[in-house]
Amino acid sequence: MNTHLPMLQVALDNLSMAAAYDTTRLIAAEVDIIEVGTILCVAEGVRAVRDLKALYPDRIVLADAKIADAGQILARMCFEANADWITVICCADINTAKGALQVAHEFGGDVQIELTGFWTWEQAQAWREAGIGQVVYHRSRDAQAAGISWSDDDIRAVRRLSEMGFKVTVTGGLALEDLPLFQGIPIHVFIAGRSIRDAADPVAAAREFKRVIAQRWG
Amino acid sequence: MNTHLPMLQVALDNLSMAAAYDTTRLIAAEVDIIEVGTILCVAEGVRAVRDLKALYPDRIVLADAKIADAGQILARMCFEANADWITVICCADINTAKGALQVAHEFGGDVQIELTGFWTWEQAQAWREAGIGQVVYHRSRDAQAAGISWSDDDIRAVRRLSEMGFKVTVTGGLALEDLPLFQGIPIHVFIAGRSIRDAADPVAAAREFKRVIAQRWG
Repeated sequence: MNTHLPMLQVALDNLSMAAAYDTTRLIAAEVDIIEVGTILCVAEGVRAVRDLKALYPDRIVLADAKIADAGQILARMCFEANADWITVICCADINTAKGALQVAHEFGGDVQIELTGFWTWEQAQAWREAGIGQVVYHRSRDAQAAGISWSDDDIRAVRRLSEMGFKVTVTGGLALEDLPLFQGIPIHVFIAGRSIRDAADPVAAAREFKRVIAQRWG
Repeated sequence: MNTHLPMLQVALDNLSMAAAYDTTRLIAAEVDIIEVGTILCVAEGVRAVRDLKALYPDRIVLADAKIADAGQILARMCFEANADWITVICCADINTAKGALQVAHEFGGDVQIELTGFWTWEQAQAWREAGIGQVVYHRSRDAQAAGISWSDDDIRAVRRLSEMGFKVTVTGGLALEDLPLFQGIPIHVFIAGRSIRDAADPVAAAREFKRVIAQRWG
């Protein structure tokens, strides 16, 4: 595998383990990263992370816990459940991000700052200075539902984050036809949720994402 | 009970139901609000809300889910588990707060905006306009650990939120001796976590909070 290709992540925003397994039993082998979505975290608790990593030990398992405070405690809970990566929400105090990152290093894991909603470039600079290497550029699900689409501002922001040295994950109602919008930017990860989970043929949908990624970034 | 007195909320930031029950079996009758802390939400999932409301049906049960996105889905999960109130994190898109509030109204519940970390007065105005009635002024746990104490700025911000019409909950490593700092402001709720949970005598600690509240606000 060309490691410079953007990776593919499936987001499991399910209401139960059983519903998540309906997806993973089909496409776990097709994706690079299995995301325990916030919805699944709240539905099932941290056992969702533990069980999914036990089932798929060779995948990167990401706990999208969107940690807002108590960074060390929540990070430790996730990493002790064998998460590889965890998320910290953008409005968290910088000490929350630092605390989570310190625990991540202890476990050989990593922290992503989840850019959902309101954040500033001044914060982004502070994250870099704190040693944060990954961010998730997230078009809000509720903003999407309100009819707000991918814009030039989104693309420019993703490019600027990449130029600051962040490995950037892109997500938020990402359809296959949105991928070319990011061509020319070294995207780290694309997340597909409903585009894969709700597809008539999820395996074919995941492979189609991989094919377009290889075509545009290969 | 004088309804104008600030209420007392215990935050259950435990790692398991069993640990939470060690506290609630003692002090559930002493407090007005039982908070299923974010740590307990992540540890046990939404069953923590369901089980605590089943045990203590006459208490207000608050799910501190710190919802950042997917406001309607996460709100519905919490209210279907019989939460009375839920929290939305301050950096969430305004549509997330609106979605959560819409579901809250359907269930006769309420939404609090959790002011953890970075937020602006412009956002606060938008929350009011969206019909949000409650905010939680939160001194970050990680900021506390970094040695940052209650400041005049904190007190001024709490007063301004109250003057904007919000019912304000105050939290963040709140000790008994911090309460007088807020005298003269119609605080809606004070949250005590470790000050009650970790006290040698949690019942006495809760009653002492109630006593000082009655003395200063009665």
